[in-house]
Amino acid sequence: MEKIRVAIVGYGNVGKGAEKAVNIAKDMELVGIFTRRNPESVKSDANVYSLDNILDFKDDIDVCLLCGGSATDLANQGPELAKNFNTVDTFDTHAKIPEYFSEIEKVAKEANTLAMISTGWDPGLFSMNRILAEAILPQGETYTFWGKGVSQGHSDAIRRIDGVDDATQYTIPIEEAMETIKKGEGSSLTTRDKHSRLCYVVAKEGADLKKIEEAIVTMPNYFDEYNTTVNFISQEELNENHKKMPHGGVVLRSGKTSDGINQSYEFKLTLDSNPEFTSSIMVAFARATCKMAAEGRTGAVSVFDVPLGYISTLTPEEQRKNLL
Amino acid sequence: MEKIRVAIVGYGNVGKGAEKAVNIAKDMELVGIFTRRNPESVKSDANVYSLDNILDFKDDIDVCLLCGGSATDLANQGPELAKNFNTVDTFDTHAKIPEYFSEIEKVAKEANTLAMISTGWDPGLFSMNRILAEAILPQGETYTFWGKGVSQGHSDAIRRIDGVDDATQYTIPIEEAMETIKKGEGSSLTTRDKHSRLCYVVAKEGADLKKIEEAIVTMPNYFDEYNTTVNFISQEELNENHKKMPHGGVVLRSGKTSDGINQSYEFKLTLDSNPEFTSSIMVAFARATCKMAAEGRTGAVSVFDVPLGYISTLTPEEQRKNLL
Repeated sequence: MEKIRVAIVGYGNVGKGAEKAVNIAKDMELVGIFTRRNPESVKSDANVYSLDNILDFKDDIDVCLLCGGSATDLANQGPELAKNFNTVDTFDTHAKIPEYFSEIEKVAKEANTLAMISTGWDPGLFSMNRILAEAILPQGETYTFWGKGVSQGHSDAIRRIDGVDDATQYTIPIEEAMETIKKGEGSSLTTRDKHSRLCYVVAKEGADLKKIEEAIVTMPNYFDEYNTTVNFISQEELNENHKKMPHGGVVLRSGKTSDGINQSYEFKLTLDSNPEFTSSIMVAFARATCKMAAEGRTGAVSVFDVPLGYISTLTPEEQRKNLL
Repeated sequence: MEKIRVAIVGYGNVGKGAEKAVNIAKDMELVGIFTRRNPESVKSDANVYSLDNILDFKDDIDVCLLCGGSATDLANQGPELAKNFNTVDTFDTHAKIPEYFSEIEKVAKEANTLAMISTGWDPGLFSMNRILAEAILPQGETYTFWGKGVSQGHSDAIRRIDGVDDATQYTIPIEEAMETIKKGEGSSLTTRDKHSRLCYVVAKEGADLKKIEEAIVTMPNYFDEYNTTVNFISQEELNENHKKMPHGGVVLRSGKTSDGINQSYEFKLTLDSNPEFTSSIMVAFARATCKMAAEGRTGAVSVFDVPLGYISTLTPEEQRKNLL
């Protein structure tokens, strides 16, 4: 069997994870890493090229993994690369997905390419579980919990406070809330009941710690609706203990199939490395993208369009025998 | 929009659950229940017909939900009904799935019908999670846990022992084993470490309880590899407390994406009623079956062939906006 020829576009944490995942995948080979930086500055055992030259590889690449961020990179890169390549991305600005989908759909249809948008775990695996749970249990409620994990947005918000040098914010799901939901009694839960926030903050010398803490816990949207704990620590301790990238979360749907009959559906991830897991999902969906493209599918698609068998390296016969 | 016209074939626990699920589904209408019993003996608000007459309804039915058991009913009914109807079933004899698939594939291809086999939760949802987790985390191990729930096979095995009047056997997953697996240390676990068995037994008057207990705990394949607890109770207590149908289970995959980076994937069901949940899954996949059939798909398919969007009542646009 011919191997799937994969290009990685962008070499941040997700790009580095994608490199590992492609190397593990027995049906794939890595054409190279394409970067906007000086290729010589990128440390990798793979071939590294300037993104400016990617069209030179048009006939050598079956699918591009777009490993940039939604806000800064994908809005431009997604449509641009779909003009010449099949692509997979992790576009995760939920509110802008319909618009992004439309734009890519137009470009990819014209170019006869296939673009799989918004893979990863949320959007992605969590979305798949939301659609599945809702279809199976139409009378019910779906809840999504995030964490325990680092929220970059919340960490950044703390760093912008006067007197703060550095910070890491963990979003923590509250176990009791999940138990309440599983019993079918989740409707009374407030935002405060479902997640708490834990902050490790490095203050500047002489800063007013009381004032910083007050600024954090009362910050609108970010913290005011949550129970928030603030711990002041040294930069050394932050670097040592709070610069890793664990994450995870839960999709929970509790529904009734008849009076008094409660059914609980739960999907849970516990991740040592958020970017490595995200890129592993991209790689699995890249396989599906190539199979769908080979069947003549073009335009934009999402995880909702993929028959699950397509993400497996096994043949349909092997899948039914070993996994069904 | 025209409603999907559904027939229920068989009116045991799964058929009764299917009736409730079809009535909840806003895009479906129930044509009737088709039974091998005397239709007048079936208590339902729906129309009840003899299965012998189902061909009279050939033009009125979009899809048949086959609610019989694998061993007794489906092996014949599946191929027979696929000659004239689109079908969905819950064929769950794992070892015979390839053979069953081939047989149905042949019939359904000739008849231009579509047959979705082996829906439900295992096979079914659990299979989907096995294929997904394995594709995303190729370096890892998948474990399936069942329970807490009643195993009919094990309960029946106890009932066949001399001196036993009635019995209910619960399969119980061992929480500590799941925690061990999530830490990536599951490979040393034995069968005994993963599940235990709890039996409630009604003995005949004067029976030798010690002998019955010994016969249970040493029974090859069924009990000898497990820690088994046997409780003797009265028929009244068994009827009162142990004739319900709760079940559930967990698919757990723990994998590494690089050295020391452990990623844990978990799917868990906690069900008050196994048959009602099973039939709710059938109904969701019946929707997908009709969409795929409308696109011209024929033959046998499984949950691995279904784009998840097809099981939803929402349009693709609504799905992307609300669930992705």
